[in-house]
Amino acid sequence: MSSNQGLKNKGKTRADMDERRRAVEESTGVHLEHSGGCTFDPLLAEKNVENMIGCTQVPLGFVGPLRVRGDHADGEFLVPLATTEGALLASVNRGTSIVTSCGGAEVVIIKDEMTRAPVFRTGGVRQARQVVEWVNEHFEEIKAAAEATTRHGRLLKIRAFASGRSLFLRFSYDTGDAMGMNMATIATEAASRLIEERTEARMVSVSGNMCVDKKPAALNFIEGRGKIVLADVRIPEAVVRDRLHATPGAMVEACYRKNLVGSALSLCYGSNAHAANMLAALFIATGQDAAQVVEGSMASTTCELCEEGVYISVRLPCLEVGTVGGGTRLPCQSEALSMMGCLGTGKAKKLAEIAGALVLAGELSTLAAQAAGELGRAHRELGR
Amino acid sequence: MSSNQGLKNKGKTRADMDERRRAVEESTGVHLEHSGGCTFDPLLAEKNVENMIGCTQVPLGFVGPLRVRGDHADGEFLVPLATTEGALLASVNRGTSIVTSCGGAEVVIIKDEMTRAPVFRTGGVRQARQVVEWVNEHFEEIKAAAEATTRHGRLLKIRAFASGRSLFLRFSYDTGDAMGMNMATIATEAASRLIEERTEARMVSVSGNMCVDKKPAALNFIEGRGKIVLADVRIPEAVVRDRLHATPGAMVEACYRKNLVGSALSLCYGSNAHAANMLAALFIATGQDAAQVVEGSMASTTCELCEEGVYISVRLPCLEVGTVGGGTRLPCQSEALSMMGCLGTGKAKKLAEIAGALVLAGELSTLAAQAAGELGRAHRELGR
Amino acid sequence: MSSNQGLKNKGKTRADMDERRRAVEESTGVHLEHSGGCTFDPLLAEKNVENMIGCTQVPLGFVGPLRVRGDHADGEFLVPLATTEGALLASVNRGTSIVTSCGGAEVVIIKDEMTRAPVFRTGGVRQARQVVEWVNEHFEEIKAAAEATTRHGRLLKIRAFASGRSLFLRFSYDTGDAMGMNMATIATEAASRLIEERTEARMVSVSGNMCVDKKPAALNFIEGRGKIVLADVRIPEAVVRDRLHATPGAMVEACYRKNLVGSALSLCYGSNAHAANMLAALFIATGQDAAQVVEGSMASTTCELCEEGVYISVRLPCLEVGTVGGGTRLPCQSEALSMMGCLGTGKAKKLAEIAGALVLAGELSTLAAQAAGELGRAHRELGR
Amino acid sequence: MSSNQGLKNKGKTRADMDERRRAVEESTGVHLEHSGGCTFDPLLAEKNVENMIGCTQVPLGFVGPLRVRGDHADGEFLVPLATTEGALLASVNRGTSIVTSCGGAEVVIIKDEMTRAPVFRTGGVRQARQVVEWVNEHFEEIKAAAEATTRHGRLLKIRAFASGRSLFLRFSYDTGDAMGMNMATIATEAASRLIEERTEARMVSVSGNMCVDKKPAALNFIEGRGKIVLADVRIPEAVVRDRLHATPGAMVEACYRKNLVGSALSLCYGSNAHAANMLAALFIATGQDAAQVVEGSMASTTCELCEEGVYISVRLPCLEVGTVGGGTRLPCQSEALSMMGCLGTGKAKKLAEIAGALVLAGELSTLAAQAAGELGRAHRELGR
Repeated sequence: MSSNQGLKNKGKTRADMDERRRAVEESTGVHLEHSGGCTFDPLLAEKNVENMIGCTQVPLGFVGPLRVRGDHADGEFLVPLATTEGALLASVNRGTSIVTSCGGAEVVIIKDEMTRAPVFRTGGVRQARQVVEWVNEHFEEIKAAAEATTRHGRLLKIRAFASGRSLFLRFSYDTGDAMGMNMATIATEAASRLIEERTEARMVSVSGNMCVDKKPAALNFIEGRGKIVLADVRIPEAVVRDRLHATPGAMVEACYRKNLVGSALSLCYGSNAHAANMLAALFIATGQDAAQVVEGSMASTTCELCEEGVYISVRLPCLEVGTVGGGTRLPCQSEALSMMGCLGTGKAKKLAEIAGALVLAGELSTLAAQAAGELGRAHRELGR
Repeated sequence: MSSNQGLKNKGKTRADMDERRRAVEESTGVHLEHSGGCTFDPLLAEKNVENMIGCTQVPLGFVGPLRVRGDHADGEFLVPLATTEGALLASVNRGTSIVTSCGGAEVVIIKDEMTRAPVFRTGGVRQARQVVEWVNEHFEEIKAAAEATTRHGRLLKIRAFASGRSLFLRFSYDTGDAMGMNMATIATEAASRLIEERTEARMVSVSGNMCVDKKPAALNFIEGRGKIVLADVRIPEAVVRDRLHATPGAMVEACYRKNLVGSALSLCYGSNAHAANMLAALFIATGQDAAQVVEGSMASTTCELCEEGVYISVRLPCLEVGTVGGGTRLPCQSEALSMMGCLGTGKAKKLAEIAGALVLAGELSTLAAQAAGELGRAHRELGR
Repeated sequence: MSSNQGLKNKGKTRADMDERRRAVEESTGVHLEHSGGCTFDPLLAEKNVENMIGCTQVPLGFVGPLRVRGDHADGEFLVPLATTEGALLASVNRGTSIVTSCGGAEVVIIKDEMTRAPVFRTGGVRQARQVVEWVNEHFEEIKAAAEATTRHGRLLKIRAFASGRSLFLRFSYDTGDAMGMNMATIATEAASRLIEERTEARMVSVSGNMCVDKKPAALNFIEGRGKIVLADVRIPEAVVRDRLHATPGAMVEACYRKNLVGSALSLCYGSNAHAANMLAALFIATGQDAAQVVEGSMASTTCELCEEGVYISVRLPCLEVGTVGGGTRLPCQSEALSMMGCLGTGKAKKLAEIAGALVLAGELSTLAAQAAGELGRAHRELGR
Repeated sequence: MSSNQGLKNKGKTRADMDERRRAVEESTGVHLEHSGGCTFDPLLAEKNVENMIGCTQVPLGFVGPLRVRGDHADGEFLVPLATTEGALLASVNRGTSIVTSCGGAEVVIIKDEMTRAPVFRTGGVRQARQVVEWVNEHFEEIKAAAEATTRHGRLLKIRAFASGRSLFLRFSYDTGDAMGMNMATIATEAASRLIEERTEARMVSVSGNMCVDKKPAALNFIEGRGKIVLADVRIPEAVVRDRLHATPGAMVEACYRKNLVGSALSLCYGSNAHAANMLAALFIATGQDAAQVVEGSMASTTCELCEEGVYISVRLPCLEVGTVGGGTRLPCQSEALSMMGCLGTGKAKKLAEIAGALVLAGELSTLAAQAAGELGRAHRELGR
C-alpha cells in the first residue's frame, strides 16, 4: 500500500525522501527520528545515493594544528575526522601535537596514477602477445580514444598481463583533482572498444581485478594506486621521554617486533599500527570513498633510532583521494575540506600530503603508547 | 585568544561543541553550517569521539526487501546503507530484488572469534618454547585472569607463534554481541600480566600485528576474525536473461576471468567484485568501525553454472560486527540497526547474516552488469 | 629403428638403461659419456625414476663440524651439501665454524605434520556445513579408514575450508620418519571415499591446493607443513669483529633493512637472506624432494643486538624431510645421511634439527658478509 | 690428525678430493663408496663447489619427444630430467606425448631481465626522493659504471622503492645467455659505489631482498624475474577421453576448484598443480641453480573448455635459466643441455621455451589424472 508505494518512490526531492522514510518507518515499525535530520536539500545528494531516506550523522571532531612540510601543503592545519571510535582523536591529537612541536612532518608524493584494468579473452598466448604488441604500437591512438571521454583525465600508460586466454590491460591515468575511478572507467571502456575493433581480443569485464579497486592486492602495494605518499619526522629524545613517556629504544623495539616481525609473520600487506583508523575518519569527514580505506590501510611504518632520538616514517602506497567530484561536493564534506583549504581544483595533492602527515601522527602516538605501556610495567616492577 | 581557547576546550556538552566549532571557524575562516547540524545531544557521543565540533551527514538510503535464510536472520529485511558513491544502492538493490525473488540467500556462520595478539620478548627459541608450554599448561588460569575483566567475553584459545626472541600469543574470544576489540584488549592485558609474572617473557606491545586489526593479513584470511560467513543463491537462467540481461555463461566467465584469474595475478587477499562497497555503506549506517572494512574486503565470490542457471556464493572470512557498544548506541546508527531488528543483545549474528546476504546481492548485480556489458557489445556487433 | 625402440624400452636393468641411453645418443647426436657413469645398479633406483639413462653427478662437498644443540641432534656434525654454486660452501662453512665456536645452535621443533587436502564439490554452503559437521562427528571412523592404508601414518586432524560449492578438507598426519607425501595421499584417498559414501560431497581432486605441496602458500607459512624448526645462536662482539669483520650494529642494520623492510616491501613469504641455498644443497645430497625447497625457502631470519653482541635466529615453518623412503635409499644419498647419523628410522627429527642449524649458519655468514661490505666502504671513506 | 688435516685441505685436485673424502670417512665412520664415484676431473668443478668430496649421483631419465613451437625452440626435443621422485617422469612423459600429438606447445617469452636490488640508507624521505631523481638523471653514467664490469650484461633500467630511510634500487639487466645473478651483483656493486660517491645514500647491503633471489615474493610474481614464459595447447575431446581417460568438463572443474579456488584460499603465489617438480628435475639435470626452483614454482595454470575440447596454459613469471656459466659447464650437465641443442651462447631462450612446454606437459598430465580419478569413482558408482 502506501508503505509499498513509498518504498518504490525513486524521486530525489525532500518530499520524496520524506515519503520514502515514512514508508520505511511503516514497514519496519521504527521511528527514524534522527536519520531524517538532514540539514541540506536532498537534491544536492542526487548523484551520491539512491533511495535516500535521510542522513547518518557521524560524530565529527578535529585534530591539530598539524604542521605539514610538503610541496603542496606547507603550513599548519586543523584536520577534521569523523568517527565513532572513542579515544582515536585524543590519541591522534597527541601525535599531531608532537609532530608540530618537532617542526612538522616532511611529506613527499612520488607517484600519482589512477588505474583501471579490463580483462579480455584472446585465442591464446601467441595471440595475446600480438594484441599487446598492437596496443604498444597504437598507444597514441588508444590514448586519443580514452581522452576523448574526459576533460581532465590523461592516459599515462598501459601495462599488459597475460595468462592463458585472459589478457589484462592496466590503464594508468592522471585524473587531476578527482579520485578518478569513474573517469578512468569511462575512458577505459572507450579505449577497449577500439582495441576490440582492431584486434582479436574481446573484453569480458571492464574491471578484471588488476585495477585493483577496494581489494587488498600486492599489485597495488608494489605499483601504487592513487598517490604514493611518504612522510617522516624526527622526535628528540627529551620529547619522547617527557611527552610520550617512553624511550626511543622502547619505541623502536615496539615498532620492530610489532610492525616488522609481527606483520611479516601474519603476512600483512603493509606493516603499520592503525593507519586505517586515521584514513577512515578523514575519508568519511571529507567525502572520500570509505571503501578505499582498504587500499589505504597498506601503509608501512618504520621507527629507528637517530641522533636526535627517534626517526619515524610512513609509506602510503595507495592513497586514493580527490577534492572534486564524488562525496566532496556534499555540504558537510566540503566544509571539512575547506577547513584545510583543500576544496576544489588544484587541491588533491595538498590533501594527500596532509593525509600522510596525519597517518604519521597517529602511528607515532600509538607506537609510543605501546612502548610506554611496557615502561609502565617496568616502573611497577622496579617499584616493588 | 578565544579561538585558541575554544580549540583547547575538552568539554563534551553541546555548548562545548559549539564553542569548539566556532573556534575552528574562526581559526580556519570556514563557516561550518552543516557540520554543526547535530540533531542529538553531543553527550550521547562522548564515548565515540573527542574534540567534537558537530556531525558529518552521510547520505542514507536503503535496499530491500532482502530475503535472508540464515540461522539467526530468517525473513525479509530493509537494509540501511550510508554512502556518497552514486549508483551503488541502485545496483545493490537490483541484486537484492533478484536474490529475494529467487527465494533468498542461504547464509551460515561457521566461526565467531575476536582476537588480540600481544608480542613478548623472550631469551630465545628454547625459552619461547618453554613459555608456550607454560601457557598451554596454565590455560585455565590465564582464562580466569582474562575473563575477570569482562562480563561478556570468554577466552576460547591461545595460539602461539615464535620467531627468534619475538613470541606472539594470539588470544581468541567469544565477545557476545559486541564487536569486541576493546574487550579483547583489556582481557589480554590482564592475561599478559599473569604470563609476565610467571614466565620469563616480557610484553613489548599488547598488539603484535598478529591480531590483526585493520590491516589486510593472510593470517586473518585463513583463520578468520570476527565471523566467518558463507552465503549463496541459485538464479534460474530465465531470471538471468530477463532481469539481469546476461547469460549464465557470460556471468560465469566474467567471474572466472575477473575474480579468479585476475585476483590471482594481482595477488589479492580475497577474490570479489566490490564487497568493500556494501560493507562500508552498512558499517557507516549501523555504527560499526569503518576501518574494519579492511578485513571485510577479503571476500571470495564464486559463480558457477548449475542446473537452474547460475550458482553464486560469497565467503566473508572476517566480518567484524556488533550490535552493542561502540557506534551502535548513537541515535542514527541505532535507528538503522532497529530497521533490521538488529539492535542490542542477541543480534550480532543476525546482523552478520544479513551482511552476508547483502554482499551476495551486490556481487551478483555487479557481475551481471559486467557480463551484460559484454552481451551488449555482442548485440551491437551482431546488429551491424 | 633401434633408436626408436630404445627410446621406448621401459626396462629397469643396467642393460635397459644403457640401451635407452644409446638410443638417446643416437637420436640427439650427443655422446652421454659422463651421464652414463652410474656406480650403482640401476634397479636400486627403480622406484625413483623412469626412463633412466644414467645419473647426473652433482658436486658434493661438506661443511662442519657444526655444533647442534637440539633435542634429537646433540653434537657436532659434518654436513654434506651438493651444489653447483661456487662460494656457497665456503660461506656456509664460515658460518658453521662461528656457530660451533660459539657453543652451537639451539634448535627446537615445535610442530610436525604432513598434510593433504582434497577438494570436494557440495550442493552449497549449507550442505558444506553439514558435511563438515559429519566429518567432525565421525573423525574416529575416518581416521580408521585413513590409517588402514599405512603402517606408520597417524591421522591427527582434519581442518575444513569452504567457499561456495568447493569444500577443502586439510588432513594432517604424523608420518614418522618419512617425508610422507605419498603416505598422506593414499590415506586421504581412502578417507575421502568414506566421506563420499556417507555424505553428499563428491571429491573433485585428491589435492585441492590447500595441502599445499611445492607451491609458496600463506597457509603453509602460517600453519606449518612438515616440521616447524626454530634455531638461534649468540655471537660475542669480539667474534663478530675478528672473524666476521663486521660490527654487531652493522649486522643488525643489514638484517633490518634487507630481511625485514626489504622483504616487507617485496611481499616475500618469509624474510631471509638465502635459506633456499642451504636447503637445496642439503636436499640434493640427502635424497630429499628438491622441489620442496619451495616451502623450505619461506624462512624468517632475525638479527638483534644482545648483551654478548649479536643474537641471530631462523624460523623454518615448512621443513619437509625424511630419513626413510623416497630418494634416501639411493646409494650416494644414504651415504650422505649416514655421515650425520641420520639414515633410517627414528632420524627425521634429527635431520630437521641439523638442517635448522645449517640454515642458521648460512644466514649468519651472508648477513655478516653484507655488513662487512659496508664496513669496508666505511674504512675506505675514513682512510681518504 | 690426518682426519683433521684432510678436513682442512682446501685443494681442488682429485687427490685433494680423495684425501678430504677419506678424512670425512674417518671422522664419521661411513664408507663413502658411491659418493666418491666422480667420473670427471674435480678441477672442472673448482668454480662450482668447495670442500669437494665427490658427487651425488641423481638418477637421470628423459621425456619426449616434446614438440615445441616457440620463437627459439621449434622442433621436437628429448628432455633430460634428474629426480628421485618415482612416477614423475612417467606422468610428465604422458603429458609430453599428448602435447606432441596435438601439434606441440605454443610458447612465447614476453620479458627477460635479471635483477639485483641493493638497499641504501638515506636521511629520510625527502633525501630519498633527491637520490632517486639523481639516479634517474644520471642513468647513462650509472649504466656505464655497471657495464664496465661485464662483457655481456646490459643495464636496462633501475626502479626505486623508498620506505623511511631505506631506499631500494632494483637494477634490471639483460644478461645474455647466463642466468646472470653474479654478473648483476658485480655490476650493481660498481653502480652503487658511484651512487654513494655522488649522493648522500649509503649502501647497507648489495641485496636488499627486493631482487628477489630464491624467496617467493609478490614483486617477482608481478614484475617477473629471469624470463616470463607463456605456453599453451589445445587438446581435442577425443584425446582427452581416449588417452587421458577424462572428460574436458572434469579437467576444467579439477583445474578450477584446485588451481583457482584452492590456490586463492591458501593464498599461493601462483596457481598450478606441480610446476616445481618439472623445474627441479630439469634444473638439476642441466646445471641450473636448484634453489631458483623457488621462483619458478610460482606458475599459473589455466584450463578452459574450447571448441576442440580443452585449452590449457601455463604462465611462468620467473624462469631463471642460463646455458653458459654456473653449473652448465659441468660434464653431465652440459651433456644434458646438448641433448636439447641448448649448450652455450645463444641458447638460453631456447631452453626457457622448452622448459615452458615441459611444465605445460606436466600440468596437463597431473590435472587429467586427478580428473580421471573422479571419473573412475563415477564409473564405480554407476556400475553398482
